Amino acid sequence: MIPATSAASRIKGSVRIVGAGLLGTSIGLALVKKGVTVFVDDVSPANQKLAIDYGAGVKASPLDEPSLIIVCVPPDVTASTVAAELKAHPTAVVTDVASVKAEILEQLSLFGSSLNNYVGSHPMAGRERGGAIAGRADLFVGRPWVVSPHSDSSKHAVQSVEDLAIELGAFPTVFSAEDHDRAVAMVSHLPQLVSSLLASQLNLAVANDLSLAGQGLRDTTRIAASDPKLWIQILEANAPSLSALLRNFLAEANQVLVALEEPAAPGALAAIGNVLEQGNRGVNRIPGKHGSNPTQYSQLVVMIDDKPGELARLLTEIGLIGVNLEDLKLEHSPGALIGLVEVFVMPEMEIKLSQDLVARGWRIAG
Amino acid sequence: MIPATSAASRIKGSVRIVGAGLLGTSIGLALVKKGVTVFVDDVSPANQKLAIDYGAGVKASPLDEPSLIIVCVPPDVTASTVAAELKAHPTAVVTDVASVKAEILEQLSLFGSSLNNYVGSHPMAGRERGGAIAGRADLFVGRPWVVSPHSDSSKHAVQSVEDLAIELGAFPTVFSAEDHDRAVAMVSHLPQLVSSLLASQLNLAVANDLSLAGQGLRDTTRIAASDPKLWIQILEANAPSLSALLRNFLAEANQVLVALEEPAAPGALAAIGNVLEQGNRGVNRIPGKHGSNPTQYSQLVVMIDDKPGELARLLTEIGLIGVNLEDLKLEHSPGALIGLVEVFVMPEMEIKLSQDLVARGWRIAG
Repeated sequence: MIPATSAASRIKGSVRIVGAGLLGTSIGLALVKKGVTVFVDDVSPANQKLAIDYGAGVKASPLDEPSLIIVCVPPDVTASTVAAELKAHPTAVVTDVASVKAEILEQLSLFGSSLNNYVGSHPMAGRERGGAIAGRADLFVGRPWVVSPHSDSSKHAVQSVEDLAIELGAFPTVFSAEDHDRAVAMVSHLPQLVSSLLASQLNLAVANDLSLAGQGLRDTTRIAASDPKLWIQILEANAPSLSALLRNFLAEANQVLVALEEPAAPGALAAIGNVLEQGNRGVNRIPGKHGSNPTQYSQLVVMIDDKPGELARLLTEIGLIGVNLEDLKLEHSPGALIGLVEVFVMPEMEIKLSQDLVARGWRIAG
Repeated sequence: MIPATSAASRIKGSVRIVGAGLLGTSIGLALVKKGVTVFVDDVSPANQKLAIDYGAGVKASPLDEPSLIIVCVPPDVTASTVAAELKAHPTAVVTDVASVKAEILEQLSLFGSSLNNYVGSHPMAGRERGGAIAGRADLFVGRPWVVSPHSDSSKHAVQSVEDLAIELGAFPTVFSAEDHDRAVAMVSHLPQLVSSLLASQLNLAVANDLSLAGQGLRDTTRIAASDPKLWIQILEANAPSLSALLRNFLAEANQVLVALEEPAAPGALAAIGNVLEQGNRGVNRIPGKHGSNPTQYSQLVVMIDDKPGELARLLTEIGLIGVNLEDLKLEHSPGALIGLVEVFVMPEMEIKLSQDLVARGWRIAG
């Protein structure tokens, strides 16, 4: 639940944001909306002014006494900026939002200052567009926010960063720096690299061929529009985890290439089919609601007349039956005489729900 | 604009659809809406019945005299089915909707019958889900529809297929079979293969790591959920064009791998940066709005507490407000305490709905 007023804010005291790009500005916008005092700083006076104009906070001053400092600068200057902030504000909790965590922690240890007040973090939110003008207060709503404590982090520091995440509508989730870096290599860095490599091939195309582009190409290449300057730093910082994944990707891709070069060879079609099947399996592992595997739910397909109020009536009756709806999808079928509603429930509820819905006159699709 | 009545239909006479999967059913739904008589056939009586129940047409009979026949069967049986239809209905125009065109034309020439009445085609529309129940009358609206005449195609046949495309809201665009296959290798087949390969890597992940998945991973792997049985045929049929593209993709990817394995080596960061830059350039080459589905609805994002009955209550209240719901999506928010419901309504209803929902105590995001 997001509290409606600043009276309920989990953030005690004021917040200093260093770096007024997409993330810094978005955090500022959301905190200001909650009535929190936010000081915005940036090495670029133009960036700083833009974010302030945009509503992300007020101009930072050396006299500010923030209780929480959020470092939102590029990865290559994150560790030095965190170290400087820890020194300048010895009582404040300091966090950063960089996309790679182990290298920053390692660099920080070289500065020699106490890291009690430091906890790394990484909001799993972003856009392919950067800068203050892409900022939005709801950027973090419903998203995971990784909190990475280390051996010296104080409980107070960890709690402060978790509170920040919750305040912004995100849900905090604890990963060590190493676990985090391994996870994001898979869910973020490999997809970024593969998307860029795929989009790079489009430079070879006859322009008219690209007029046939559909949603599949658009979706697979959307993140290829991301900022190279930022991503080169991220990929470099996580090179060991990422190269291991890329190596395996290439091994599989090479098998497919061999098969495509001689599709009539024994086993060639099986090799192609295997990758397609494994792709099905892999995409099914991406969690849906509540972080659970969607295949853990049972699915019922209910046919409803395509008229106003039918969906609400169905959901009301599911509530009356006493079954909790875990997820729902509409099969939106303009022109069809009926609509299909996919209802996801816990497996043990499936039979009861099916029977009770049929008893109430609903049609279940085969 | 799609004409509202059959009086304006470009389709003269009746239409026979062979194969009641996603494409056949979607074409049937759209034509029936226009008042065209559609005969639906399928080797599977169950598929045929489902599509007819769904509203895609009436049951085919040997006595039907269609003027246009649309073959919507899997690629490996497309040529033989087209040949059989040409023989059974010598006066009808016959087209197919298979994703690869040169191989089918080559196979057809082996059957020895006149191909005057045949024109290949390929609507650039699809979904990662197949079957009649995924069919939708607006599947082709705003999409390119490739028409592939060959040296023997009659003008009448070409015109009939172009009229079909226009009737369904698509844009007919002429490509030779060879040009078509080269183009779809780039805009469709390589993205499918790369997406499957990427999703395949997810099978290696620790399950908890995937809880950090965001929109980037979801978008890049969405089409990896596609049907392997269909895609193995498509990729095989277009193997020469596709393998050339894949070879180049792998050469670039290998350079990145070398760079990631030794990021401190001279030129390593430049190699990584180059791919990211070329990805920016490539994605910018994809033409803009042309070819994408028109965003005809306005979207409101409503935040709801994650507890039973809230979604039903929201939909009931939208009904009471008197606004018709055009579509609805639940935002998957793993572990979040709130859910996001994307509500799609006609643009002119957006402000009223937003105001009335806020007045009733609902929270609108953004």
